[in-house]
Amino acid sequence: MKCRSCRGPAVIEVRRHHAAFCTEHFLTMFRTQVEKAIRRQEMLVPDDRVLVAVSGGKDSLALWDVLLDLGYDATGLYLGLGIGEYSDRSHDLARAFADGRDVRLLTVDLERDHGYDIPTAGKRGSRSTCAVCGLSKRYVFNRAALEGGFDVVATGHNLDDEAATLLGNTLRWQTDAIARQSPVLPARDGMVKKVKPLHRLSELETAAYAFLRGIDYVVEECPLVAGNTQLRYKEAMNAIEQTSPGTKAQFFLGYLERGMPLFRSEDRAELRSCEECGQPTTGRFCAFCRARAQILGERLGVGPEPSDREVAEELSDEVLPVEIYDQAVR
Amino acid sequence: MKCRSCRGPAVIEVRRHHAAFCTEHFLTMFRTQVEKAIRRQEMLVPDDRVLVAVSGGKDSLALWDVLLDLGYDATGLYLGLGIGEYSDRSHDLARAFADGRDVRLLTVDLERDHGYDIPTAGKRGSRSTCAVCGLSKRYVFNRAALEGGFDVVATGHNLDDEAATLLGNTLRWQTDAIARQSPVLPARDGMVKKVKPLHRLSELETAAYAFLRGIDYVVEECPLVAGNTQLRYKEAMNAIEQTSPGTKAQFFLGYLERGMPLFRSEDRAELRSCEECGQPTTGRFCAFCRARAQILGERLGVGPEPSDREVAEELSDEVLPVEIYDQAVR
Repeated sequence: MKCRSCRGPAVIEVRRHHAAFCTEHFLTMFRTQVEKAIRRQEMLVPDDRVLVAVSGGKDSLALWDVLLDLGYDATGLYLGLGIGEYSDRSHDLARAFADGRDVRLLTVDLERDHGYDIPTAGKRGSRSTCAVCGLSKRYVFNRAALEGGFDVVATGHNLDDEAATLLGNTLRWQTDAIARQSPVLPARDGMVKKVKPLHRLSELETAAYAFLRGIDYVVEECPLVAGNTQLRYKEAMNAIEQTSPGTKAQFFLGYLERGMPLFRSEDRAELRSCEECGQPTTGRFCAFCRARAQILGERLGVGPEPSDREVAEELSDEVLPVEIYDQAVR
Repeated sequence: MKCRSCRGPAVIEVRRHHAAFCTEHFLTMFRTQVEKAIRRQEMLVPDDRVLVAVSGGKDSLALWDVLLDLGYDATGLYLGLGIGEYSDRSHDLARAFADGRDVRLLTVDLERDHGYDIPTAGKRGSRSTCAVCGLSKRYVFNRAALEGGFDVVATGHNLDDEAATLLGNTLRWQTDAIARQSPVLPARDGMVKKVKPLHRLSELETAAYAFLRGIDYVVEECPLVAGNTQLRYKEAMNAIEQTSPGTKAQFFLGYLERGMPLFRSEDRAELRSCEECGQPTTGRFCAFCRARAQILGERLGVGPEPSDREVAEELSDEVLPVEIYDQAVR
C-alpha cells in the first residue's frame, strides 16, 4: 500500500475513500475533514471560546488536539462520573493531555457537585444508566459553558456514533429526533451552541489519529455500557460497511444533504427557568433536577409529592428542550 | 409454550408479538394479518380479479393460498426465468399447487416469449442479474394483467423483504424510492394496481404458514442471488431483530404511518406508449425493450445506433414510471 498523496509507504487504509495514507498525509486528511465540517456547517469562528467535552477517550482527546492544532481557543471540561477505576484512569489521562499541552482542564464531579454518581443513579430513579449519564453530561456541559462564558461546546461524536444514532432513530421513525440530529445546534436562550466537528470521521480514523499523534487515551469501553442498544446498531452498520465500504458516510452525510430538510422538529416549546437551578426547561423543573431529586429521594418545590407512577409518566411524556436531549456528550 | 388463544400446546412462537400459537390459531392470526393489510390499505374489493405473481416459493404460494381461502378470485402467473433446474422445479411446484386447488396458472416464458433467459441477460447488457430479473418480472406481470383484464397484481413481498428494501433505500437516502415504497400502488394509465398483502408478516411466518398448510414449495434460494445486497440488509435487520424483537415491524409499519407522509415522490413524469411494445414508459422505448434489445444485440427504432457508452448513460439517467421500478416481483 502506498500513500495516496506522496506514494511513500502507507500506514493506514481508508476503504471508503479507496485510499491509503502515510502518517503525515493521514493527519493532513484528518485535519482537512475537520476543517471542512467546521466550515460547511458554520461551527466555529476564529475568536470563539470553545469548551471541549473531554472523557479521556480517543474521540474527545483527538478533537481537543485537532482544535488546538487548528489554532482554536479550546478548554477541556472533564466530568467525573464516579465509575470506579474507569473514571479515575479517564481523569488521569485527560489531565496528562492538558498538562502536556499546557492547556486548561476544568473538572466537574457528579458526586462532589451534585450528590450522586452514575452507578448509583442507574440503580435508582426511572432512567437507564446510559440515559441518566447522557442527561447529566448534557446538563453539566451546557451549564459550565454558560457560567464560564464559552461560545460553544464541542463534542467528539464521530461518524460511527452519528450513523448508529441515526439508524436507531430511523428504525423507530422518531421523526422529531431525526429532525434534530444535526452536527450543529445553534444557541438559544440559556442553551449554548453545540457542535460535532468529527462527524465526518470514522471511529477507526479517530483511533488512528490519536495513536499516530501519540495521545494516551482510555482504550476500554465504559464498563456499564455492555449490551447497550447503540452498540448493536454500530455492529449492524459495521456488518454492512464491511461489504459496502462507505455506507456509514453515505447514510449520515446523505441524511444531512437530502434527509434532514424533509424532517422538521414539530414544536419549539417555550423555555423558562428551572425553579430549582435556573437552567432552561419547558416545565417547572428541568429534567436534570427531576432526575437528581428522584435519585437522591428528595422533593422538588412545594405541593403534594407525586407518586412513583406520576413521576414515571411525567418522564416518558416530557417535552424537553431540543438541545438538552440531543447532545449526548461522552 | 402454550397457544395464546386456546392455551393448548403451541407449535410456533412469534417473538415480536410475545406470543405462541397452535396450528389452528397461527393460521387464524396469519389470515387476520392479511385481512388487516387488505382492509387498511384498501388493496382489494370482493369482486376484483387478482393476478398473483407466483414463483413457486413459500411467499407467493402462501399468498395465493390465503387469497383463495379468503374467497378472492385469484389466478396465478408463473414466469419462466430459465435458471436451470431451479426454474424447472419452481414451475412444477406452482403447477402442482394450481392442480391441487383446481385453479388456473398462466405461464410466460422469458426465452420462449421474449428471446432471452436470466442467466444470459445477466452476462450481457449493462444491468446486474437481479436488476434485469426484477425489471422483466415487473414488465411481464403488468402486461399480462392488462392483457388478461385483471384488476390488480398481488405479490408475495413479506415484512422482511420490505424492511430490507426500506433499509437499503434509507441508507442511501433515496428519497424518491422511499416515497414510493407503499404496499399499494394505484392503477395509472397502462399500469395495473399492485398490492403486497403479506407485508405485515415475517419470512418465518410465511414459511410456517406454507409448512402448516402442507404447501410444497421451492426451499432453495435462487442460485444467482448469492451476495445480493438485499440479503445483506436482511442479515443486518435479523441481527438487530434477534436482540430487539419487533424492530422490523416497527421500522416498516412505522414508516407507513409516520415516515411515508414526509417523503413525496418528486415528479410524476408523463407516460406515453413504448414505440416497440406499446407499454407505458416515460421515454421513446420502455426500459424492458431497451434492456431486451441490449441483451439480444438488436436495434430499436431508426436513427443512428447509440454507442455502448450512450446506452450506459441512458440507463443510469433514465426516469422510469414509478410502478415499473417499484414492484420487484418474485
